[in-house]
Amino acid sequence: MSIGKLGNNDALAILREGTLGRLGCIAADWPYVVPVNYYFDGENIYTHTLPGKKLDALRANPRVCLQVDEIKDPYNWRSVIAYGRFEEISDEETEVNVLTKLHSRLPHMTPVESRLIKGMTRTIVFRIKVKEVTGMAEGW
Amino acid sequence: MSIGKLGNNDALAILREGTLGRLGCIAADWPYVVPVNYYFDGENIYTHTLPGKKLDALRANPRVCLQVDEIKDPYNWRSVIAYGRFEEISDEETEVNVLTKLHSRLPHMTPVESRLIKGMTRTIVFRIKVKEVTGMAEGW
Repeated sequence: MSIGKLGNNDALAILREGTLGRLGCIAADWPYVVPVNYYFDGENIYTHTLPGKKLDALRANPRVCLQVDEIKDPYNWRSVIAYGRFEEISDEETEVNVLTKLHSRLPHMTPVESRLIKGMTRTIVFRIKVKEVTGMAEGW
Repeated sequence: MSIGKLGNNDALAILREGTLGRLGCIAADWPYVVPVNYYFDGENIYTHTLPGKKLDALRANPRVCLQVDEIKDPYNWRSVIAYGRFEEISDEETEVNVLTKLHSRLPHMTPVESRLIKGMTRTIVFRIKVKEVTGMAEGW
């Protein structure tokens, strides 16, 4: 049972390399967790959402975490949590840049398509200004 | 963007079939998320933890959720959240039964080893009495 803390550089590297995380927030005094695609530029986590329970919760309580893990098996895993505050992005140029970067890491989508998606849907883009990152690992 | 709600039976089936989830709780007024191995018997989710931030948070605020997903790619996924209350299990027979069931779904461990682990470590076993399950899906 060799569970231990990850160093800050290892934790930041996992956050930077990941594309899929689980976003945790507080909705009406209950924890709420959903999977999200994201990218981390070293200071901020960028992601997007449709209107709904998650967005309502984040607007009401901006305290948010993103959990990202690499799990080989139950005895060999690494997991990090980044904490920060939800900040909605409302200028269209930044929105399209964020969606383009997000989609560039996903298959089957081009920057032009990102712009079309922004135009066609009610996608909301936001950042999490990261204030703390911690991590744990077992085995590995 | 065909995102929609999952029916209750589909959501329960995902919870029953899963072995790995992300546990969300509230720690000092911040969301906190960690990966856990679990099983669901139709009424309760069973899992375990070592002493630390997660256990302290759950004892202070028993409102907890477990998020479980099946993600083929960013456009084809299903995700469920089960909400309930943390209930610590303290009688040794139930503890060993839960650890044996948890480990029977993992590789490389026998019931005898589960009993040894309970004896050797400070593992705490707990259940989440599920009061609500919701789910969303895209594509699939």
